[in-house]
Amino acid sequence: MIPTITAFERSPDGGRGLARDMHVRWALEEVGQSYDVRLVSFGGMKQPAHLALSPFGSIPTYEEGGLALFESGSIVLHIAQRHTGLLPDDANARARAITWMFAAYSTVEPPILDRATAVILERDAPWHDERLPLVDDRIRKRLAELSRHLGDCDWLDGAFSAGDLVMVGVLRRLQRSGLLNEFPNLAAYVSRGEARPAFKRAFEAQLAVAMAASNS
Amino acid sequence: MIPTITAFERSPDGGRGLARDMHVRWALEEVGQSYDVRLVSFGGMKQPAHLALSPFGSIPTYEEGGLALFESGSIVLHIAQRHTGLLPDDANARARAITWMFAAYSTVEPPILDRATAVILERDAPWHDERLPLVDDRIRKRLAELSRHLGDCDWLDGAFSAGDLVMVGVLRRLQRSGLLNEFPNLAAYVSRGEARPAFKRAFEAQLAVAMAASNS
Repeated sequence: MIPTITAFERSPDGGRGLARDMHVRWALEEVGQSYDVRLVSFGGMKQPAHLALSPFGSIPTYEEGGLALFESGSIVLHIAQRHTGLLPDDANARARAITWMFAAYSTVEPPILDRATAVILERDAPWHDERLPLVDDRIRKRLAELSRHLGDCDWLDGAFSAGDLVMVGVLRRLQRSGLLNEFPNLAAYVSRGEARPAFKRAFEAQLAVAMAASNS
Repeated sequence: MIPTITAFERSPDGGRGLARDMHVRWALEEVGQSYDVRLVSFGGMKQPAHLALSPFGSIPTYEEGGLALFESGSIVLHIAQRHTGLLPDDANARARAITWMFAAYSTVEPPILDRATAVILERDAPWHDERLPLVDDRIRKRLAELSRHLGDCDWLDGAFSAGDLVMVGVLRRLQRSGLLNEFPNLAAYVSRGEARPAFKRAFEAQLAVAMAASNS
């Protein structure tokens, strides 16, 4: 059965692959599972039909037979658990890879989301220029800890896993901040993720949607 | 084999059970698994021995034989997958319960963390009074969506699950904000979680640590 995911009809990032459908597309490409995409408009995301799938009115969602999921992390984990290639076979290594998924969403991403909020929603606030460096320092603290853990390894814990997929996806949101370049091993880590053929296929697929939207 | 978790020697919340070891204690109590606790000082959290277990220098960690995990979400999921009582047997219902765990950490908690940062780290900033209502409105948006989904159900998706455990844990951080009381069904939902015998046992255990610290 081919699953169907949802994605933005017009992604706010204009095709930079920062929306969370990218995590799911990438995971599906890594495991070689084809998928269908249903595009959702900003208005449609707040309609009952979409809210029934996604209570917070977000994308992506994932439908497969009688199963409907939301939250990119949960969807990536579901894909990783049902296919080979995104989680190690060893039970302990598997639990550690899942730990990195939670670390990406719960520990590394919150200050990055705070920065996005500051830049998008509080850009004109009188405190913006003075507060942004505080937010950036909180991100640096997390990046320094992650950088120290990664060291000169290719991936966070042995072979590439769903934990790396999600962590790279989270760190890519810092592209325009310049912060990632302060930690060369993390910048290289993100580049390593982006160089994977499955990433490239996923990126091209979401870019094609953005290009179609900008031409319509 | 009895697992060992770590917790704050002196929790910053003074025993209100808002530190993340509470999620893990509660999960262990729900499944009836006894556990040992190793207390860590603020200084000790940044020492190599703890950083080897927890790269971001946080608590809780979880050690069981050769396995070492960090991130409360990952630890709760590990416990839930290896015992009966925190995840449904049906595969689809199981995936949906895990979805709620990710929703709690990735979607509901970030603005709540932002509020904690504002109140703790930016209390004396000149923008504090003007900015806090903006943060509160972002929390309200998530609470409204969650409240609409919950409706008059007891739990988020059928029987109590690890998803509810984590969501209640996240919402409890709003105790002193007054925001939860704007959504009576969510306030009742949190109370329902706190009324569970396993929650009470976990709460008393962390409170005893805080009381011992305050008397030392």
